Amino acid sequence: MFEADLVITDVNLATMDSNVDAPYGAIEQGALMIKDDKIAWLGKLNDLPEFDALSTPVINAKGQWLTPGLIDCHTHILFAGNRAGEFEQRLNGVSYQEIAQQGGGIASTVRATREADAETLFVAGKNRLNSLLSEGVTTVESKSGYGLDLDTEIKLLEVNKVLNDNHPVDIQSTFLGAHALPPEFKNDPDAYIDLVCDVMLPKVAELNLADAVDVFCENVGFSYAQTKRVFEKSRQLGLPVKCHAEQLSNQHGTELVAEFKGLSADHIEYLDEAGVKAMADAGTVAVLLPGAFYFLRETQMPPLELLRQYNVPMAIASDFNPGTAPLCSLRLMLNMGCTLFRLTPEETLQGVTVNAAKALGLSDRGILKVGMRADLAMWDIATPAQLSYQFGVNELSNLWISGKLIQ
Amino acid sequence: MFEADLVITDVNLATMDSNVDAPYGAIEQGALMIKDDKIAWLGKLNDLPEFDALSTPVINAKGQWLTPGLIDCHTHILFAGNRAGEFEQRLNGVSYQEIAQQGGGIASTVRATREADAETLFVAGKNRLNSLLSEGVTTVESKSGYGLDLDTEIKLLEVNKVLNDNHPVDIQSTFLGAHALPPEFKNDPDAYIDLVCDVMLPKVAELNLADAVDVFCENVGFSYAQTKRVFEKSRQLGLPVKCHAEQLSNQHGTELVAEFKGLSADHIEYLDEAGVKAMADAGTVAVLLPGAFYFLRETQMPPLELLRQYNVPMAIASDFNPGTAPLCSLRLMLNMGCTLFRLTPEETLQGVTVNAAKALGLSDRGILKVGMRADLAMWDIATPAQLSYQFGVNELSNLWISGKLIQ
Ligand SMILES: [Zn+2]
Ligand SMILES: [Zn+2]
Repeated sequence: MFEADLVITDVNLATMDSNVDAPYGAIEQGALMIKDDKIAWLGKLNDLPEFDALSTPVINAKGQWLTPGLIDCHTHILFAGNRAGEFEQRLNGVSYQEIAQQGGGIASTVRATREADAETLFVAGKNRLNSLLSEGVTTVESKSGYGLDLDTEIKLLEVNKVLNDNHPVDIQSTFLGAHALPPEFKNDPDAYIDLVCDVMLPKVAELNLADAVDVFCENVGFSYAQTKRVFEKSRQLGLPVKCHAEQLSNQHGTELVAEFKGLSADHIEYLDEAGVKAMADAGTVAVLLPGAFYFLRETQMPPLELLRQYNVPMAIASDFNPGTAPLCSLRLMLNMGCTLFRLTPEETLQGVTVNAAKALGLSDRGILKVGMRADLAMWDIATPAQLSYQFGVNELSNLWISGKLIQ
Repeated sequence: MFEADLVITDVNLATMDSNVDAPYGAIEQGALMIKDDKIAWLGKLNDLPEFDALSTPVINAKGQWLTPGLIDCHTHILFAGNRAGEFEQRLNGVSYQEIAQQGGGIASTVRATREADAETLFVAGKNRLNSLLSEGVTTVESKSGYGLDLDTEIKLLEVNKVLNDNHPVDIQSTFLGAHALPPEFKNDPDAYIDLVCDVMLPKVAELNLADAVDVFCENVGFSYAQTKRVFEKSRQLGLPVKCHAEQLSNQHGTELVAEFKGLSADHIEYLDEAGVKAMADAGTVAVLLPGAFYFLRETQMPPLELLRQYNVPMAIASDFNPGTAPLCSLRLMLNMGCTLFRLTPEETLQGVTVNAAKALGLSDRGILKVGMRADLAMWDIATPAQLSYQFGVNELSNLWISGKLIQ
């Protein structure tokens, strides 16, 4: 007799497991068993092992689809204030310069975030997580980066921890102290990088508040050399790195993050072949962010053919943030990945499951397989492609996180 | 003593009333009273008339914003099946021609819709309406047009009626028999227009199943002359007209619909100045559909400057449909209207309230004013621009339709 806490029968499994030889790693007319917080068995319904039918709950999915819980591997959900005012000003013809002179742009978010107490940030984060959860998202990466001073950066990472402990979604916490130059260091970016490396990073590591470290490497962000310093310090402290790279120009941040065997290079619209090759060699994941591409009306496409050619795993994420992607929806990114980047629905679904897990360095989720976390989303759909094709009618019928039914 | 069923205090009113001299027709620190199904009073909180405080419920909105219930004035929510399969095929490199040869495209939706029973279509429509309702939408236009034979077109319009009677959202029903050429008439479009004019339209009018008549006037749809025949018959029957016009090319459908004092010309990416002028003279509303623009990766922009110059009212709608806009979200269209069309947040909000009501010929809603239907959406936002700026975190806190609290 097989011991299980729950048996799901008559279900189509999009395992996303490349060892299952079918698109989406699909096992149609399948079944799946949960024991404790893990997947205990899966396979064809016909092969379902015997279990104690009297004491084990059974859900008949009636042909619905089960996927791994979705993973949003790049977000900035923790900030205060909003930038609707400057959004409106820009559409009324006010220039970026004027807005910046008024103290707008990222500076206004930093100001509001520094002023906000932890409770305010927690509530904002919780509301955003609830939206993602309602779409089937079970793991969310959450970056700091709107504090840009020691206390606020620590406060943000601590809110990540409180959210992780008090919200069903699993939070992966990323320290992004090197997100932008704070006003206090306006004329001395290197001195700010000193602060990040000598004060912030050691404190973050000591308090064990981050799973990874990120840098915004760009001509309007931090230079290659500055990024390298942050990565070196992170390596010393045993923290994996990732990079906002090649979003607006080619600064070779991708090659740099690959050199450090980084988790991911994110955005990468301006990446060249050398960078793609470096990623492939290092096992670094490409995180594509169609929401920012859309919102900025970018026309430079990420090098998709090269990424395919070199077998670089591609993830898709929301990049939810107040400046360049105020779109808090991972399901919308599936559609935008197909519509704007011409990814296939299988690629986009890989992008929010198996490859998003890789981008976070997590080997316990992202595919349906025995021993994996039972993070499961059940959808009332006829084919997995529907998740990328249609948007707005929520087809999610059930969601489990670590084996617990959430909705 | 003022008699009211509900008093909302400390609320910011985006009245959208052009007689209120402020952006969004805003009355800040206001109040509003509902009596029966209508707005009985609104104004500054300080001017609130005396009412029976013992027997009248009061909601303190604590500075939230109240807007008219949103109006989606162009949708195709009634269809069966879905086109995820061909969406996936196209992204895997299969050509439109091959898909059409396999019986894909609109033909597959027509087949599925003809086969579906009314109950199936009702459930599909209800799910889509629920999504829109959850975003603050209180009026939805719903077109037929996936039947293309008498029985199925009547079935679709009857489902509209059942939805209207059984769902809180108010449905405006549009007959779109001339949506596409059904396979039976492949070689004889004029004979199909005969059927539409001589059989379908009289039956629709007799059964009182439509509030308006629409035609898809396009080189891949129906010609100017065919469209004109449908409009002439509609006029005879006393039915107002509207037109899918100038989406892919300039067929002068807009000038035609203006000649018939039509309600709206929809899409209009390829409209020229003569067409804009004709709309202005006729009082025809421009219905902009950024979801289809996005999904088709269109680059030709509607003539926005000309529309502004000639004071043509602009509405925004979802165009939700399985072929060219599988995006069932009006809130997303507010963002897309700003992001893709560079409309201002005030223009997009006018587009889903006051101008959407005009596009449907409805003078009892779309603005907050005494005597109007109490279709009201309350939002936990700091400025109305936030409705267009941010997407995915639902800020709707309360919704009333005809004075009844829905959520
Ligand atoms: Zn980012
Ligand atoms: Zn349409």
